[in-house]
Amino acid sequence: MNDRILVAPGDLLGDGVFETVHLRPSGPWLLDEHLARLSRSAAILDLPAPPLPPLTDLPESGAMRIIYTRNVLDVSVGPIPAQVLRERRDGVRVLSADQGISVRRRPPWSITAAKSLSYGENFSARRWAVRQGADDLVWLSTEGYVLEAPTASVVWLTGNELCTVPPAEAGILSGITAAHLLSLAPSVGLAPVERMITLDELASADAIWLASSLRGLAEVIELDGAPRPRSPWTSRLLALLGFFAIL
Amino acid sequence: MNDRILVAPGDLLGDGVFETVHLRPSGPWLLDEHLARLSRSAAILDLPAPPLPPLTDLPESGAMRIIYTRNVLDVSVGPIPAQVLRERRDGVRVLSADQGISVRRRPPWSITAAKSLSYGENFSARRWAVRQGADDLVWLSTEGYVLEAPTASVVWLTGNELCTVPPAEAGILSGITAAHLLSLAPSVGLAPVERMITLDELASADAIWLASSLRGLAEVIELDGAPRPRSPWTSRLLALLGFFAIL
Repeated sequence: MNDRILVAPGDLLGDGVFETVHLRPSGPWLLDEHLARLSRSAAILDLPAPPLPPLTDLPESGAMRIIYTRNVLDVSVGPIPAQVLRERRDGVRVLSADQGISVRRRPPWSITAAKSLSYGENFSARRWAVRQGADDLVWLSTEGYVLEAPTASVVWLTGNELCTVPPAEAGILSGITAAHLLSLAPSVGLAPVERMITLDELASADAIWLASSLRGLAEVIELDGAPRPRSPWTSRLLALLGFFAIL
Repeated sequence: MNDRILVAPGDLLGDGVFETVHLRPSGPWLLDEHLARLSRSAAILDLPAPPLPPLTDLPESGAMRIIYTRNVLDVSVGPIPAQVLRERRDGVRVLSADQGISVRRRPPWSITAAKSLSYGENFSARRWAVRQGADDLVWLSTEGYVLEAPTASVVWLTGNELCTVPPAEAGILSGITAAHLLSLAPSVGLAPVERMITLDELASADAIWLASSLRGLAEVIELDGAPRPRSPWTSRLLALLGFFAIL
């Protein structure tokens, strides 16, 4: 685990993959799933299968990042950013915005299904949302479908259906937290559903969350300027994900 | 100038900018233009204006890369890749392919006009072209306009008009080599023109080149499988760019 990494200049050109894992007293949360996605992402970028990263002496809390390029396999650990804890507790104000990309015309070389190091547009989109006075955004396809947030999956509740966007159909990153949550849904009487959704449908959902490894779930408390009531499900689903007492 | 750089893990997430400059006996080619574009790219990514990079003891040939992130300003020098020299001499076989992105719907946070470190899709697209048996590709917008190649501008000759794609209108990177070439066009009796072009129009041009700092011009000798005759203008324009004897 390094604070600093020695790399070749070419390693800085975004041609690699990464994962962010939530460290818990019980160990790295959903580690196998993250390592499997690291391998899938690597394959999309024509990288060799990643070796098992060195994962010894991990702390019982924090954020672990695994970075893998053609020359580097790095594991680093940092604190959970304060903003992540705040968003998990207080929710997020979210804008919707057309990404200008068609889900039906993803090119064959697309890397949007990989968690690639070419994360510049993700950062840029979030900075844009913050400049508009929001916390985050959800991307829409040119066809008007809800895709994902720059660093999170979109999850919503309609009646007893707990839903997320189908990654393969939408050409987006497969969300590990969202998939895990949906797998647990039946245990709390909810039916897991993957389906494409328009913005209007999303706005009429009973509750909306952004799901990611560190935030767990951040409830959408405002969508395009319209306030949304807090859902009693937020704390129940966070508990289901093991986020009760963990910071 | 470093072979290796010490970076924070976060520097590897593509949230920075770069330039590649051709080193010549007369000094770094078009250096002011490259530094100006580095600053423009930085502004698009909300980076502070870059300080002047350390540019002493530069060799008289080679490829210089300037990398700038929130924490790093690095200058490195390497040899001109053999493939670059080959493509300048022998030309390139090029495919056209829909990028799935609309030029009219570039989102406000788009970084496609910056030379960003999020270069993963550029590499992936070139690997795809090579798997199809070509050397490179040109991207088309969903509207059918020719945009750019992953690491080069598209330049073409129709009659006495030497043309390239208008960067602002197309939402693409402003090509320094292409702009410089067009500024010199009148000296060889050609009229410089910036305009949007469809694939059919491009295919009927008298000559097509991919323009970039290291290659200078690589003539398109095959477009979507159709061979194209070599143009007598290739060597004249390469000479105009100072590429006669320089390797």
